[in-house]
Amino acid sequence: MLNLDQNTITQEALRRLEGCTDPRFKEIMTSLTKHIHDFAREVKLTEAEWMQGLEFLTAVGQKCDDKRQEFILLSDTLGLSMLVVALNHQKPAGCTEATVFGPFHTDAASTFKNGDDLALGAAGEPAFISGTVRGLDGKPVPNALIDVWQADGDGIYDVQYTDKDGALFARGRLNADKDGKYWFKSILPEFYSIPVDGPVGKMMKHAARHPYRPAHLHFMIQAPGYEKLVTHVFRKDDQYLESDAVFGVRSSLISDWVKKDATAMPDGSKMDKPFYTLDFDFVLNAAKA
Amino acid sequence: MLNLDQNTITQEALRRLEGCTDPRFKEIMTSLTKHIHDFAREVKLTEAEWMQGLEFLTAVGQKCDDKRQEFILLSDTLGLSMLVVALNHQKPAGCTEATVFGPFHTDAASTFKNGDDLALGAAGEPAFISGTVRGLDGKPVPNALIDVWQADGDGIYDVQYTDKDGALFARGRLNADKDGKYWFKSILPEFYSIPVDGPVGKMMKHAARHPYRPAHLHFMIQAPGYEKLVTHVFRKDDQYLESDAVFGVRSSLISDWVKKDATAMPDGSKMDKPFYTLDFDFVLNAAKA
Repeated sequence: MLNLDQNTITQEALRRLEGCTDPRFKEIMTSLTKHIHDFAREVKLTEAEWMQGLEFLTAVGQKCDDKRQEFILLSDTLGLSMLVVALNHQKPAGCTEATVFGPFHTDAASTFKNGDDLALGAAGEPAFISGTVRGLDGKPVPNALIDVWQADGDGIYDVQYTDKDGALFARGRLNADKDGKYWFKSILPEFYSIPVDGPVGKMMKHAARHPYRPAHLHFMIQAPGYEKLVTHVFRKDDQYLESDAVFGVRSSLISDWVKKDATAMPDGSKMDKPFYTLDFDFVLNAAKA
Repeated sequence: MLNLDQNTITQEALRRLEGCTDPRFKEIMTSLTKHIHDFAREVKLTEAEWMQGLEFLTAVGQKCDDKRQEFILLSDTLGLSMLVVALNHQKPAGCTEATVFGPFHTDAASTFKNGDDLALGAAGEPAFISGTVRGLDGKPVPNALIDVWQADGDGIYDVQYTDKDGALFARGRLNADKDGKYWFKSILPEFYSIPVDGPVGKMMKHAARHPYRPAHLHFMIQAPGYEKLVTHVFRKDDQYLESDAVFGVRSSLISDWVKKDATAMPDGSKMDKPFYTLDFDFVLNAAKA
């Protein structure tokens, strides 16, 4: 079709999808095309703004590497990630709620066993984290695979370190025991800034938005017969709980990290300075049939 | 705000823009956020699809370099580029219509003078291109800067060549003379496929869309006091005029490239094989005050 104008082009762009034999792809592309076109018409996008937008997206893509996913960060800061989490994890009351995955997970994490110290010397105040993984019926889920990751006491993730040759700290995988119990040592999470040295940081600054996330420990928990749980445990005293830069806080995930005097940790291991304990149980939802 | 769900998160994401002191940026981000959120809700985007989408955008960004702009190509194939052109170039009748810029322009092009052969040996049938640059009042516009670029007879742009060490062919800049006249030699454009070796090519294939553009010569024309014109001149016999992969064809830009016997070109230069002539006048719109 010739001579398309700023309105008729939408119908023609949708018509071009007529031959597509993947109905879900067609559905997604149809909705996406309509919304992108509506957006450009609604704001009367200029050519200079269009080019700036494409240059921004290009820079976001080029900031990505095997340790940095700037498009996830963009999605997180626009609220898209949390929206998608909310859409896909409508669970029965009583199940642990999900939150954003974030850009800092890595499959390269090492495996640990209950009682190990995952910090491996990362900066931060010592912490002892424990709890039980259960089903909605209250019964323990044995041997669940627990993936843990967090920023250090300076608010920096190991994958952001530039002076450690790629070595990993304050993250790892371990299995709960046959009674669903897990326990490990690590460090107290602190609030931190999302990475602002890339295009997303520039966008946040121009929008006059603060880049902070309240302190949290990431968990991903998997067990046969249960829905995979991706979540955080937050600290109840954090100043950014109400304004998390990525919209991820749920009341049910805010917990009390209790400060203890230097004595011994709950597993009996010696601790010669003050430390924190977190006791948090996870309730997994049954997998969809 | 805590406990945002897939609906309430939109209002909160917009509220975070409250402190932004750039009203246009705020307007654009507000509309964009609403449309991205509406899109995800409308199609009930799954987490796997969300991740596939982010991986696609990452790959688009990473395909870009100083000679390849895959995000422009994505915008072109979604109809967004032509929509933005149409939005921004509503001109009085009689002015030459604008069309897409495309991803193949480069500022590195050489300067030529009227009569020169811009092809520099690029594959293709010889062509002699001429015309006059005028204002809407019919009067010639003297000395306009004319930027020309095109694919070769095999449908490939010089910037896509892998065996020429970055040398440029069938493109260049020249100035019309004091009477608005321009003339140069080049080659006959042929229909071609947009680059399909990247993520946009995969998207087109999955959508069962053909990747072809009808044959055309790109022009960008600039003169003081006039709006910059970015356009193409198409060939009237092309099979893809009605289904241009980037939606760029306007009837007024379709022209007759006339085949001539081997004799001499219109400027008197000897030509020992058949060649084509294009005579095309451009009418520039006055610059906005």
